[in-house]
Amino acid sequence: MQLTETHRPTLDRALEAIRSRAYWSPHPEHPKAYGETGAADGLAAYQALLGSRFELDQPGTDGWTGAEVSPYGPELGVEYPHPDLDVLLPAMRAGMAAWRDAGPETRALVCLEILSRISARTHEFAHAVMHTSGQAFMMALQAGGPHAQDRGLEAVAYAYEEQTRTPQGVDWSKPQGKRDPLELRKVFTAAPRGIALLIGCNTFPTWNGYPGLFASLATGNPVLVKPHPRAILPLAMTVRIAREVLGEAGFDPNLVALAAERPGEGIAKTLALRPEIKIIDYTGSTEFGDWLEEHARQAQVYTEKAGVNTVVIDSTDDYKGMLSNLAFSLSLYSGQMCTTPQNLLIPRDGITTDAGPKSYDEVVADLAASVSGLLGDDGRANALLGALVNPDVKSRLEAAAGLGEVALPSREVANPEFPDAVVRTPVIVKLDGAKPDDEAAFMSECFGPVSFAVAVDSTSDALDLLRRTVRDQGAMTVGAYTTSADTERAIEEVCLEESAQLSLNLTGGVYVNQTAAFSDFHGSGGNPAANAALCDGAFVSNRFRMVEIRRQA
Amino acid sequence: MQLTETHRPTLDRALEAIRSRAYWSPHPEHPKAYGETGAADGLAAYQALLGSRFELDQPGTDGWTGAEVSPYGPELGVEYPHPDLDVLLPAMRAGMAAWRDAGPETRALVCLEILSRISARTHEFAHAVMHTSGQAFMMALQAGGPHAQDRGLEAVAYAYEEQTRTPQGVDWSKPQGKRDPLELRKVFTAAPRGIALLIGCNTFPTWNGYPGLFASLATGNPVLVKPHPRAILPLAMTVRIAREVLGEAGFDPNLVALAAERPGEGIAKTLALRPEIKIIDYTGSTEFGDWLEEHARQAQVYTEKAGVNTVVIDSTDDYKGMLSNLAFSLSLYSGQMCTTPQNLLIPRDGITTDAGPKSYDEVVADLAASVSGLLGDDGRANALLGALVNPDVKSRLEAAAGLGEVALPSREVANPEFPDAVVRTPVIVKLDGAKPDDEAAFMSECFGPVSFAVAVDSTSDALDLLRRTVRDQGAMTVGAYTTSADTERAIEEVCLEESAQLSLNLTGGVYVNQTAAFSDFHGSGGNPAANAALCDGAFVSNRFRMVEIRRQA
Repeated sequence: MQLTETHRPTLDRALEAIRSRAYWSPHPEHPKAYGETGAADGLAAYQALLGSRFELDQPGTDGWTGAEVSPYGPELGVEYPHPDLDVLLPAMRAGMAAWRDAGPETRALVCLEILSRISARTHEFAHAVMHTSGQAFMMALQAGGPHAQDRGLEAVAYAYEEQTRTPQGVDWSKPQGKRDPLELRKVFTAAPRGIALLIGCNTFPTWNGYPGLFASLATGNPVLVKPHPRAILPLAMTVRIAREVLGEAGFDPNLVALAAERPGEGIAKTLALRPEIKIIDYTGSTEFGDWLEEHARQAQVYTEKAGVNTVVIDSTDDYKGMLSNLAFSLSLYSGQMCTTPQNLLIPRDGITTDAGPKSYDEVVADLAASVSGLLGDDGRANALLGALVNPDVKSRLEAAAGLGEVALPSREVANPEFPDAVVRTPVIVKLDGAKPDDEAAFMSECFGPVSFAVAVDSTSDALDLLRRTVRDQGAMTVGAYTTSADTERAIEEVCLEESAQLSLNLTGGVYVNQTAAFSDFHGSGGNPAANAALCDGAFVSNRFRMVEIRRQA
Repeated sequence: MQLTETHRPTLDRALEAIRSRAYWSPHPEHPKAYGETGAADGLAAYQALLGSRFELDQPGTDGWTGAEVSPYGPELGVEYPHPDLDVLLPAMRAGMAAWRDAGPETRALVCLEILSRISARTHEFAHAVMHTSGQAFMMALQAGGPHAQDRGLEAVAYAYEEQTRTPQGVDWSKPQGKRDPLELRKVFTAAPRGIALLIGCNTFPTWNGYPGLFASLATGNPVLVKPHPRAILPLAMTVRIAREVLGEAGFDPNLVALAAERPGEGIAKTLALRPEIKIIDYTGSTEFGDWLEEHARQAQVYTEKAGVNTVVIDSTDDYKGMLSNLAFSLSLYSGQMCTTPQNLLIPRDGITTDAGPKSYDEVVADLAASVSGLLGDDGRANALLGALVNPDVKSRLEAAAGLGEVALPSREVANPEFPDAVVRTPVIVKLDGAKPDDEAAFMSECFGPVSFAVAVDSTSDALDLLRRTVRDQGAMTVGAYTTSADTERAIEEVCLEESAQLSLNLTGGVYVNQTAAFSDFHGSGGNPAANAALCDGAFVSNRFRMVEIRRQA
């Protein structure tokens, strides 16, 4: 395997990107970039997986499990190996020393080969992500493919840089005046912590999974992948490719393994407390994330949990642009992104815009109209919304309409290709920031296509609310629209003080809920929504320890 | 204040040092390096502090406290401000935004000015450290002065590098084929987490305190210093200098403050749970360290706790050098270093040496003779041993003699200058690694001048014991002597797998219990003795969060 020639230039480019944070990606977003037969081949490859056993040749397989049903309707019918942990975990440790001794560069290049083979199969992954997450095909292809691969590569780059900031060795010589200097030969080795557990999520199995997976693997740790029971396939495919590449590169394939669970088994809890597990990456509910942080004391725990994302609407010089930008943000993947805005804070006395002053009611009505316009065509609506990922989202959506005056009702959209898909447009509900009952509703995460247009007394009131929301509930994103430099500065100050990532005055083709690897940080790790950011030094620096061996020279 | 001209070259040199890990220090070790009157001035300055109130002009002082008694006998008679936390903590936050907005470089340079003023007063600090820790004067000067300043500067360098690996801003432009590119202007700000709490220790108030203090301050956080009640003065002096420099540089002096406690107040526990406290650095008992890690959930917690340090004695080609090196390691500061070896594992069938085969009994007897020789002269013994830091150490020393056959009894050394000083040579006790009662004794930390010569069945047995010791009890250091390449490799493997810092075959003027800033890692952060290493990326990267503000270009 010509790892260095093939991948070293990409690694160098990635290292440059995380330093400059300018735009870069080696993974094409366009579906046609994957060859003339790429689309058809990917679909065929995906279909060939359905209704069969997904062999991985892992040690300690004591049965088969899997009951994925696509949010678009079809059962996937794929069965995965179920692990006997007492066999699998020791087997995963067997190859650790060789993987550690290979050093940071070889590990990075092997990770890049894994990513490169995943990239080549982007279309196949797109179908797997679509039919587990409910994302529309194009989003599944982009977010589940190149964007996820970018986040994985970014983690590899950070991991490589962190491990190589200390040299492999040094001859240390301390002068002693007229006497001979003190001399030592020192060798520094990046030593892994132990087995890393990746607990995958339902909505973005690859995008949210790859950073932790590759950060851990690149720092020398075996990785056990525990997918969400509804979204196993994309991560099982990832595990298979990783095992293939590791084996071909002369390492133990068991450095990466899958832990699919039986229905109701709760294997994540069992695994999280095993002494062999030293690192955990988790995306999901606040409840389980908090449990992990509290109980998995033997492990480094990286969590992305729930948050309440806010957009402050103070004023704008591009009213139309603001409305269409927000409409897209609320609609994309039916609001099932951890970054989708939930609370739109609008002064009850209205806002100033380039189209004249707009009352609270006008702003809400115009936004509702903008969403309706965006999603008026069923084809376009399906392409943007995807399907609801699970029945809980549907229940929350239905309940939301009872929380206040509905400014925009949710609409059922038919999907001709997949008649069983549950496709819904977002609901917008009017709430009053001054009413405690309303606050109880908008102050907790209502995951799914639900937005609250919250009337506030003033922009200053909005900022107080924003601060409380981020501090108490956490936030993956904050958005704001204002033409006032003072207000802008005040919003920035809240975000700096409460560690929230802020998007200001977005009116074009970038949305508050999208972040780009190598440039944007996803989450801050500084508010309750997540204890880690994708990706920074802190995300990788504690996945290994620098062990020093010094001897007299 | 000409911060840049004065300190930027030093910062650059420190950045180079942490990358190369070659020897470097800007802080002289020699007592004569501090000017012709440096020694006398330092003593006079120290004496002027005794028996008086240590004014700091902090807000919220509700009384005065302090009852330090030198391990050498004299009462210090210094009183320190006692804080009303409800006044002091909010006051400490007031200057945060300006300190954050100053940016990483200015913060680093201000920290270097603080260190530089501390350095200028090294002699004064030496007396303060000596009379709180019990270190002998020369050690107090070096470890409490230049070495501590080095560790502080090292932390500043890591903090600076970590914050500046992300640029201050970037113009991001993503190509869109034939359409206009997507463009955003992004600004990245290192945002502090909140107030950092430094919980100081008795034995090395400055050396163990400066890394956390400067890492937190350099990353934008206010720092509240809570010294050990027996070792307040060196940190109070540090706080005063920091406040002076901050004020002169145009920042709020309250960014650094002291929290001295009343006898039995337990203010560390109260502080550790305050919501304002977002970072905690702690050196001390495992019990309280574990409590902090478990309960101070709102904070990033960095701990250095207890460990059991082992030396494996397999064979040597410099028997005399080994014995004298070990004798020094066991004697320095009466074994009251977290890095002092406790368990010497020696095969019961003896070892091979350049002086012929030596039985277990011979090795122990020769080591005992070496220690006796080193400490035979009372003057030299006082200069090496210092005084026992507190009565607990004395009790443990006395009890240790009852644990097994005493190979070297502890000897009381008179200190003519300070007749009340409790000065004791180390005890060496023979134990048997195969006896459960003996294992119970040597498998827990016996902090102080107590070493166990543990007879083991073989070197392989020693390695098993080493592994168990590091895994279960933790270790700050591991030492080993062997002439066998295979054994060396096997010991290295244990240390790599259990994350322990290893010194091999030290027979000269470097000792297993000493580490040099900029080159050696102190602890690994990967075994139970400490969850952090001094100093690495992980020690600084989570003390701030990178907050991004992006807007349409």
